[in-house]
Amino acid sequence: MKELNQKERDFLIQSIRVIPNFPKEGIIFRDITTLLNDTKALGFLLKHLEDRYKDMNLDFIVGTESRGFIFASMICARLNLPFVPIRKPGKLPFKTFSCSYDLEYGSDTIEIHQDAFRGVEKAKVLLVDDLIATGGTALASYELIKKAGGVCVESCFLINLKDLKGWEKLNAFCPVYSVLEF
Amino acid sequence: MKELNQKERDFLIQSIRVIPNFPKEGIIFRDITTLLNDTKALGFLLKHLEDRYKDMNLDFIVGTESRGFIFASMICARLNLPFVPIRKPGKLPFKTFSCSYDLEYGSDTIEIHQDAFRGVEKAKVLLVDDLIATGGTALASYELIKKAGGVCVESCFLINLKDLKGWEKLNAFCPVYSVLEF
Repeated sequence: MKELNQKERDFLIQSIRVIPNFPKEGIIFRDITTLLNDTKALGFLLKHLEDRYKDMNLDFIVGTESRGFIFASMICARLNLPFVPIRKPGKLPFKTFSCSYDLEYGSDTIEIHQDAFRGVEKAKVLLVDDLIATGGTALASYELIKKAGGVCVESCFLINLKDLKGWEKLNAFCPVYSVLEF
Repeated sequence: MKELNQKERDFLIQSIRVIPNFPKEGIIFRDITTLLNDTKALGFLLKHLEDRYKDMNLDFIVGTESRGFIFASMICARLNLPFVPIRKPGKLPFKTFSCSYDLEYGSDTIEIHQDAFRGVEKAKVLLVDDLIATGGTALASYELIKKAGGVCVESCFLINLKDLKGWEKLNAFCPVYSVLEF
């Protein structure tokens, strides 16, 4: 399965803006908006993801609100695949499954429509988000896909903050692919 | 410029789920998740939007958080165009322009990065969202595009709730295209 070489990764990395101390002191924030508004970098990334996933016989692509919507939607449009959103509580209007997960302080909840996969048995699902850090959102998304009857065949992140080890936890359940690691 | 005929619109309409009394009593909610997870309906919609916008020499597509991200991103991926997000306050990490607008009770604010259009002079911008109702978000998005130096050459909505007349207000400033009207 295709991965990028170091030169290709460097080309993408130079398009991502580094913002120190956002959203709080001590955090180095990777701003992907400068990749998204750069035709060449975005085009290169999408071609790569299209090549990686075109022969995987996926049934659905799931994106997590709200930056995950962007990359998941783009891959859907390239591969002619249907899109399923995982959203914050109260946003999905039909019957949902919920999953809560712990944050540094407090907890968060996300939801998926119970009929998200339209009754397709063991639907082959790709989970997409922009970033994996401690893995709370990603693991909850994986759980929701399972509850809705899907099989998460791979999870795909533009950025993996690898020292935070969320990828390790998720990798116990499904393969994790990250385009870039920091 | 290509628009759909009634039969084509009906094909899309049957893919949108109607949910009475969501998010509150008396509201008829149009649930687009059933269009997004329907390969044929989504494919038809994207082909239509691709045909409509491919020769417009657009420089950027702007999508408003968070359902607007989905359709805007999909059109970007089809047309190889860069994507610019308009987000809720505090989400964009670099210098922003803000715009506030009134809601039924209270007000809301959205933001765009000041350098969203990368210094492209009078960048030709398409504004995309899933729905226009009273037009508060859409008009604020239009203002933000202008503040950032862009020219909104068209705004595109999957659904126009036409009796709420947001489209009329926005149409005073830029052409409004809605795929479906209710």
